[in-house]
Amino acid sequence: MSSVISSHSLGKQLSGWQSGDGGHGGAATRLSAAIAQRVLDGQIPLHTRLPSERDLAGELRVSRTTIASAYARLREQGFLASKQGAGSWTTMPDRSNGAVGPLVPGIVGDDGTLDMGCAAPGATASAVIDAYTAAAAALPAELLRAGAHADHGYHPYGLGVLRAALAERFTARGVPTSVEQILVTIGGQGAISLLAHVLVHERDMVLIEQPSYPNAADALRRTRARLVGVPVTSQGWDDTFAEALAQSRPKLAYVIPEFQNPTGALMTAAEREHLVRAARAAGTLVIADESLVDLPLDGQEMPPPVAAFDVDGRVITVGSLSKSFWGGMRIGWIRATPRLIRDLASARSSIDMGTPVVDQLAAIHVLGRAEELVAVRRAELRRGRDTLEASLREHLPQRQWTRPTGGLSLWVTLDRPLSTALTDAAGRQGVHLAAGPRFGLDGTLERFLRLPFTLHEADLRECVLRLAAANRELDERGTHWRAPSSVVA
Amino acid sequence: MSSVISSHSLGKQLSGWQSGDGGHGGAATRLSAAIAQRVLDGQIPLHTRLPSERDLAGELRVSRTTIASAYARLREQGFLASKQGAGSWTTMPDRSNGAVGPLVPGIVGDDGTLDMGCAAPGATASAVIDAYTAAAAALPAELLRAGAHADHGYHPYGLGVLRAALAERFTARGVPTSVEQILVTIGGQGAISLLAHVLVHERDMVLIEQPSYPNAADALRRTRARLVGVPVTSQGWDDTFAEALAQSRPKLAYVIPEFQNPTGALMTAAEREHLVRAARAAGTLVIADESLVDLPLDGQEMPPPVAAFDVDGRVITVGSLSKSFWGGMRIGWIRATPRLIRDLASARSSIDMGTPVVDQLAAIHVLGRAEELVAVRRAELRRGRDTLEASLREHLPQRQWTRPTGGLSLWVTLDRPLSTALTDAAGRQGVHLAAGPRFGLDGTLERFLRLPFTLHEADLRECVLRLAAANRELDERGTHWRAPSSVVA
Repeated sequence: MSSVISSHSLGKQLSGWQSGDGGHGGAATRLSAAIAQRVLDGQIPLHTRLPSERDLAGELRVSRTTIASAYARLREQGFLASKQGAGSWTTMPDRSNGAVGPLVPGIVGDDGTLDMGCAAPGATASAVIDAYTAAAAALPAELLRAGAHADHGYHPYGLGVLRAALAERFTARGVPTSVEQILVTIGGQGAISLLAHVLVHERDMVLIEQPSYPNAADALRRTRARLVGVPVTSQGWDDTFAEALAQSRPKLAYVIPEFQNPTGALMTAAEREHLVRAARAAGTLVIADESLVDLPLDGQEMPPPVAAFDVDGRVITVGSLSKSFWGGMRIGWIRATPRLIRDLASARSSIDMGTPVVDQLAAIHVLGRAEELVAVRRAELRRGRDTLEASLREHLPQRQWTRPTGGLSLWVTLDRPLSTALTDAAGRQGVHLAAGPRFGLDGTLERFLRLPFTLHEADLRECVLRLAAANRELDERGTHWRAPSSVVA
Repeated sequence: MSSVISSHSLGKQLSGWQSGDGGHGGAATRLSAAIAQRVLDGQIPLHTRLPSERDLAGELRVSRTTIASAYARLREQGFLASKQGAGSWTTMPDRSNGAVGPLVPGIVGDDGTLDMGCAAPGATASAVIDAYTAAAAALPAELLRAGAHADHGYHPYGLGVLRAALAERFTARGVPTSVEQILVTIGGQGAISLLAHVLVHERDMVLIEQPSYPNAADALRRTRARLVGVPVTSQGWDDTFAEALAQSRPKLAYVIPEFQNPTGALMTAAEREHLVRAARAAGTLVIADESLVDLPLDGQEMPPPVAAFDVDGRVITVGSLSKSFWGGMRIGWIRATPRLIRDLASARSSIDMGTPVVDQLAAIHVLGRAEELVAVRRAELRRGRDTLEASLREHLPQRQWTRPTGGLSLWVTLDRPLSTALTDAAGRQGVHLAAGPRFGLDGTLERFLRLPFTLHEADLRECVLRLAAANRELDERGTHWRAPSSVVA
């Protein structure tokens, strides 16, 4: 279960942790922060045995007391577990509010740390409360529907009414859809994870955008697929994706066509048509993750769904209420052929047995008010985008980005390939970030940083100030580029 | 993706389908029902290509029209898909209410079919409504708790308040438990599936009771573990389990200590102690699935939890509100070491990102009223058990069983090893059953049948009448025992 990292490799991973003015706290504090950051980013995998205090002290040329004190701090924070005779290995901290990992929100601590690691909007409390109050009210009728045979509550496909509402939405968007083509899942992540489980087998080749949403890559990696990254930028997909399809003829391709996470790119209608045609020629299934489709911010007309170009059932659409409404509902869905939907429902009996009933009733309520609720969300996000952009221009003028026309974040180009170092320094300044390499497959992307604009405006401004301080720290230290470490987790 | 079944093998699987008085409907109807039953039971795996009409007609010595008409009926019911040139393959029907498979409820059709395939109690409507009304009322405070940093709703560990309530319950049962030892899951199935994913790797050996809960076996099988069945009967575990641990030293053992599903056996305190000691000697982790622990029906004192005998963190406890309250909440949990809990929470970010928030709030309400609600459930189940037993004694006196002291079902011994044939005949009489072999690993257990007493009393009586009619059908046909087919799904 454990792997081991040598003091030499760890020293290399940590290069630059100590130089500079010392920031907040002494050497041990900075060392423990640097290690914690790499655990959070998956650069040091969980359960990696760290070198002995003596070895690491030798490698980093610090006293053994510094290492002992850094390890003690990591243990205290939950990043390290130690056992007499067995050494110390990395672990994931159990935050009081239950958050974990770099792309799950809630790292915001009592210490005032701000979380820019995760791009997820908070709940609009009144709307959430309305939805669940309506769901509780709808429950008697729902239970009654089961009639004399009381409802056991297991619905592997999802409730018929919700499936019908989702099918209608697709139909209204120009993709005629029957109820049999819809499966309700545990959020968008549940959809991707279930699809990976059913469709992908060991050594199957899967194409994924590079950069992309790391939790999707993780779900695909769990099936021991071979992931092949295809570059995408804020400018979009160009022809590389279709060429990669033609060349490698993968089993599956995973794309985020709307406000691609993290680049923000929006796939044009022509690119969609091209993608589907190339997938058909290659015999590839396409998962189009529409999680962000409700979030155009410039009033623009959206291109047709990728599924609109499908002629033979090879496009699988994943959707979710998490980004346009609230992640705490855990409502997602899959649109596919009735046959695949049946297979997915069958597979669920050994995974989760279905989505909770009341959240589905709440989702029906939310879909009924979707226009109004999404309008509120868009207005919030527009304000967040404006605030973040203005603050960055003021305090970090050397950063560049293409203004995204929707979604939840900016994909910022740094002036130096120092995303991990900047993320470390930002952590010391009280901002949690996910470094660029977390969005890639091979530890590259050190020149990029994803900055979500989902926080409150005052927090966004404060984040940028702290980021500027972190940047000054790097400048003062004269931190240089170092070979990026690969993402192993 | 597809396997093929020869007409000879299929003919063997279907032996006896046609003999007897014909029951309801002609040869094609009976043939399609027999095939559908085997698909539902996993005896014919999904995506198995069935023989051509001509071949099967030859094998079964019926007209090709009969086969064509049986296949057409299966297609209509969703058990078969066909494509010009590619033949016909088995699929799982998409029931209007979303049910699938033999152990997921809801097979009850508009045609009056009664479902005894699944042992899950229906919702107590008023209690469910109360719980979710309370949850909706608790939501503002919960959202407020996130303060200025709005709640994103992702809680991979579960809400702190629910974890605390669950930890307290364990502590009150004599197993001191901290919040860090609890993870909230998507029902008990989500717990088992997540544990299998994190703990079991390809070719690991996993011990499982035989018979056992099929969906747990499926979850373990998905990891490509080697499952080894250890016999358990209504009389309990005897020494075989400990011996098997000593001999095979498996990675993991999965047990249901309370009212074991399906045998109903209750593990004594001495057996628990013995089990944990043997597991420690063998270096084996034990999953104790406590799904039915709240359901003693004879007012007896319950033995301590298996975890009470644990000295070194090798017992992992799985619990759920599905059986004592309602499956539609999808609330389950895992109690384990803080380190394992952290690993499980990390793994969730690529699986489901956590359990929905409002269901967790509803669960807190339910736990607060647990005594009262469970008392109602027990009284219902006692009445169900009495009714089922009385009906069986009256109409099927040749059946035997040991009265279970708790749980949801009887494990009935048939007078002949004809569980699958009886299940087929019962299907024609309008009762859906899961045949004995579905609870085993190797197609044996043809002499057993699980009969849940979770239905309403009138339905239970009707089920037994239909079962008696099915039994008469077998008698009249003089159906003989046939070699059990193996369970491949």
